Amino acid sequence: EATQRGRVMSSRAKVLTIDTMNPTVKKVEYAVRGPIVQRAVELERELSEGIKKPFAEVIKANIGDAHAMGQQPITFFRQVLALCSYPELLNDSTFPEDAKSRARRILQSCGGNSMGSYSASQGIDSVRQDVARYIERRDGGVPCDPDNIYLTTGASDGIVTMLKLLVCGEGATRTGVMISIPQYPLYSAALAELGAVQINYYLNEEKCWSMDISELQRALDEARRHCNPRALCIINPGNPTGQVQSRQCIEDVIRFAAKERLFLMADEVYQDNVYADGCQFHSFKKVLFEMGPEYSNTVELVSFHSTSKCYMGECGFRGGYMEIINMDNEVKAQLTKLVSVRLCPPVPGQALMDLVVNPPQPGEPSYENFIKERTATLSALAEKAKLTEQVLNTVQGISCNPVQGAMYSFPRITISAKAVKEATDKGQQPDMFYCMKMLEETGICLVPGSGFGQKDGTYHFRMTILPPTDKLKILLNKVKEFHQKFTQQYT
Amino acid sequence: EATQRGRVMSSRAKVLTIDTMNPTVKKVEYAVRGPIVQRAVELERELSEGIKKPFAEVIKANIGDAHAMGQQPITFFRQVLALCSYPELLNDSTFPEDAKSRARRILQSCGGNSMGSYSASQGIDSVRQDVARYIERRDGGVPCDPDNIYLTTGASDGIVTMLKLLVCGEGATRTGVMISIPQYPLYSAALAELGAVQINYYLNEEKCWSMDISELQRALDEARRHCNPRALCIINPGNPTGQVQSRQCIEDVIRFAAKERLFLMADEVYQDNVYADGCQFHSFKKVLFEMGPEYSNTVELVSFHSTSKCYMGECGFRGGYMEIINMDNEVKAQLTKLVSVRLCPPVPGQALMDLVVNPPQPGEPSYENFIKERTATLSALAEKAKLTEQVLNTVQGISCNPVQGAMYSFPRITISAKAVKEATDKGQQPDMFYCMKMLEETGICLVPGSGFGQKDGTYHFRMTILPPTDKLKILLNKVKEFHQKFTQQYT
Ligand SMILES: Cc1ncc(COP(=O)(O)O)c(C=O)c1O
Ligand SMILES: Cc1ncc(COP(=O)(O)O)c(C=O)c1O
Repeated sequence: EATQRGRVMSSRAKVLTIDTMNPTVKKVEYAVRGPIVQRAVELERELSEGIKKPFAEVIKANIGDAHAMGQQPITFFRQVLALCSYPELLNDSTFPEDAKSRARRILQSCGGNSMGSYSASQGIDSVRQDVARYIERRDGGVPCDPDNIYLTTGASDGIVTMLKLLVCGEGATRTGVMISIPQYPLYSAALAELGAVQINYYLNEEKCWSMDISELQRALDEARRHCNPRALCIINPGNPTGQVQSRQCIEDVIRFAAKERLFLMADEVYQDNVYADGCQFHSFKKVLFEMGPEYSNTVELVSFHSTSKCYMGECGFRGGYMEIINMDNEVKAQLTKLVSVRLCPPVPGQALMDLVVNPPQPGEPSYENFIKERTATLSALAEKAKLTEQVLNTVQGISCNPVQGAMYSFPRITISAKAVKEATDKGQQPDMFYCMKMLEETGICLVPGSGFGQKDGTYHFRMTILPPTDKLKILLNKVKEFHQKFTQQYT
Repeated sequence: EATQRGRVMSSRAKVLTIDTMNPTVKKVEYAVRGPIVQRAVELERELSEGIKKPFAEVIKANIGDAHAMGQQPITFFRQVLALCSYPELLNDSTFPEDAKSRARRILQSCGGNSMGSYSASQGIDSVRQDVARYIERRDGGVPCDPDNIYLTTGASDGIVTMLKLLVCGEGATRTGVMISIPQYPLYSAALAELGAVQINYYLNEEKCWSMDISELQRALDEARRHCNPRALCIINPGNPTGQVQSRQCIEDVIRFAAKERLFLMADEVYQDNVYADGCQFHSFKKVLFEMGPEYSNTVELVSFHSTSKCYMGECGFRGGYMEIINMDNEVKAQLTKLVSVRLCPPVPGQALMDLVVNPPQPGEPSYENFIKERTATLSALAEKAKLTEQVLNTVQGISCNPVQGAMYSFPRITISAKAVKEATDKGQQPDMFYCMKMLEETGICLVPGSGFGQKDGTYHFRMTILPPTDKLKILLNKVKEFHQKFTQQYT
C-alpha cells in the first residue's frame, strides 16, 4: 500500500503552480530589478570566477542606491544609531554629546529603552512629533498634527498601504488610479497586485517632463468610461524623469483633483534633491494650504517621504513616513488597524527618520560637520546632474532633459528601424534589446524606458547620476561610444 | 463663481469613506493591538497626567515583546550591530575581535560596505548561506539550499507573502486556508484582507492543545463543500496556546497534508522556546525528510523564523527568514519578483538574523558570555512558564494547560451566566468584558480569548510570561484576586 501511495504522490502535480497561483501576482512587473539586473548579477559572478568579458567590472546605474555607489553615510546619523544599538557606548567619551542626547531621547521612547521592542504600529510617538515639527518648518509654519503621521517601512510600504485602502468595486466601478508615464514601477506593480485599474497620464517630455492639466483631463475622461477613477499619484521631484514641478503646476493639479474628486498621493521622497537653477521644491501640502480653506479643508492628500533618498541615501534601513490630510476619521481608524497587523515599522529605520527630520542644530557639536557632509553630497549630485545632461546631449541620437532633481536622467534614444526589427524578432522591447546589448558589451547596467512606460514609438533608458564623478565620466563616455557603435551597426 | 464652488466643495463628501474603502480591509481584525490595548495606552497617559487610578502602573502582558518587559539584548548581537552602523568603531580596541570579524563579514556583503544600501530582494547572499548552514545543523544534516531562503521583514511579512501567492479562484473554488483555533490573529487578518476562506480546525484543549487528525479531517471535509482548501498552517510551539507538538503529531500532519494535497505552512518562530520536560522542538522539515523521499520529494512546505522571539526577542529590528521546500520553480520565480517590488527587508534585521543563525562559537572571545546570557534568558522563561501554570491553576474557575513552550499561557476561565448576560447586553464578548474590567481595576492588560478564537461557550485570555519574575508574581496574584472578586460579583 505504501509503495502504491508513493507512486501516486511522486507523480502528482504541485499544489501551487503557475496556473493555480494568485493571478494578480503574476501580472506584477518590476523593471528596476528585472532581467537586466539579473543578468548583471550573473556577469559579476562570471567576472569573479575569472571568465573573460569585454569589460573589467559591472557598473550598476540601474537603481537609486547611493551607498552602493560609494556615497558615505552622514557621520552623526551613524553615531546615534550605534549608540542606540549598543547603549554601553553612551559611556564612551569619543562620541559627541549631541549624538548621545539624541540617542537617549530615542531610547527613552522605546519600550524597555531598547530598539529591540516593537513600537506603536503608527510609529514611535516622539519620532512622529519630530516629523510634524519638521514639516511645519519645511512648509513655513503650516500646522502639522503628529496624529496624521504614520511611520512606514520605506516609502514603498506607505504607498502600497494607501493604494490598498483605496481599492474597491468591480468591473466598470473598479477603482482606477492615475499615474504618470513614465512612472516609478512600484505604482504599476502595486496596482496590478491589487487588481486596480492603472490610468496613465503622460508627462510632457517636450516641456521638461512637466504635467499638463489637459493631459490629465484626457486620461481621466477616457478612464471614466470603464472604471471609477479615485486617486491621482504624482512623483515630485520625478523618478525616472528628474523634473521638478513648478508651484503653478502643483496648484493646477490640486485644483484639478478638487474639481474631479480625486484623492491626491504625492510621492515626495526626493524633496531635498533639487539641483537646477530656478527650481525649488514645493510640497503639495504647502501649496494646498496656501490655496485657502476652500481647498485645505477638503482635498484629501497623502505625502510620502523616506530615509532612502535625498542626501542621506539610507535605503537599507527601510525608514519612511506618510502624512495624511483631510482623511475621513473612520478610514483613519481602519488605516491604524491595518498597519497594526504587521506590528510596526523597523525601529532602526524610525530612529534614522527621526535624525533626518531633526538633524544637528547650530551650536551643537556635530552641526558643522553635518552641514559639511550634507553640502558635499548635494553639491556632488548637482554637479553630476549637470554633467550627465551635458555629455548625453553631445551624442547624436540621444537627447536628455535637464536633470532638475531626484537622481536620474531619462534620455530619449533613437533606435533605428533595423534594430527595432531585430528586437521584435527576438520578442524583446527595442530599448530592452539596446540595454541588454550595452550590458553585455560594456558592463553598464541601465533600465530600459519600457520598464517605466513611455509614449509609443519612443525609446529611453534610465541612468542614475550616483556613481562617483570620475566613474560617471567614464560611464558616460562608454554610453556614448556604445550608442555610436550601435547606431552604426544597425543602419 | 469661486464662492459657489467653495460651498459645493466644503459640503462635499470625502473621496475615501468607510463606505467606499476597500471592503476586505474593513473585515480585518487584530486583537493583539485592539481596543484593550488602546485603552491601556490611554490609562497610561492618564496616570502620567496624575489622574488617580486603582493601580500605580499598567502592566502589559498582551504582546510577546520581550525587551519592552525588561529582557536585555544579547551583548554580542548589539556590539556587531553598533560596529556595522558605525564602522569607525572597528578601530576601537574595547570591542571583541569576534564581533569585529562578524561585522566586517556583514559589511563586505553590503553594497558599498554600508548597511544603508539596498540588499538583494531575497536577502544578502552570505546571510542566506549562514541561515542554510544553521538549518542543516538544527536538522541533523538534512541539506538546505541557500536559494530556498528568503529573508523577510519579520515573520509577519513572510507569512503574508506566502498566503498571497496561494490565493485564487472565486466562489466555491476560492482558496481556503486551514488555521488552528486558537490562532495568532495575523493569519485571520491576512486571510480577510486577501479575501481567502478561513478554515478553522480546533486544537484539543483537553490534550494540552495538541492537533487531532480527525479534527483536521472534519474541518477539511466541511470546507470542501464551499471552497478549495489548499494550505494548512501550523504554529509550533504554539501561540497563544504554548503547546509543543510531538514528533508523532507532526508526522501525522505531514501525512495528512500529502494525502489531502495541502501546502504546509509551519510557523516556527518559537523554535528555541521549549521549556517542559519531555518536550522537544521538531522542525517540520526534519520530520518531512525523515519520512523518506516519498514525502520529502513532494510535500510543499514553507517554514518561518524570526529575530523577534526565542532568547533574543529583537522584535523592533523586523528580521526573519522563510525556507521554501518543493516549491514549483515557476512559482519561485514569481515569489522572487513579488518581493523585489518592496526592494529589500531591512538590512539591520538581516544582520541580526545572521548573528542568530551564526552566534559566537566555542573558542571565540564572546562565546562564554553569549552562552551565559542566552541560558539566563531561557531558564528565566522556563521558570516563569512553570510559575504561571502553577499559580493560575490554584484559582477556582481558571484552568491552565502547561506552558510547554513559546511565551504565553492561554487559561480557560469560567464566566458566570450573569456576567455573560451583562457583557451581551453591552454588545461585548464575555471575555472582552472580563479583560476590560480587569484592566480598569488592576491595570493588567491581557488579550481576550475571542481575539484568537475558541470553542463556542468557552472563554480564555492570553497572558505573556514575559514580565520579570517578581513582577509576574504580583501580576498573577492580582489576576487571582480579580478573578475571585469578579466571580463573587457575578453570581
Ligand atoms: C519615487 C519613489 N518612490 C518611492 C521609492 C521607494 O523608496 P523606499 O521604499 O526605499 O523608501 C522610490 C525608490 O527608489 C522612489 O524612487
Ligand atoms: C506565531 C507567530 N508568528 C509570527 C509572529 C510575527 O512575528 P514578527 O513579525 O515580529 O517576526 C508572531 C509574533 O508574535 C507570532 O507569535
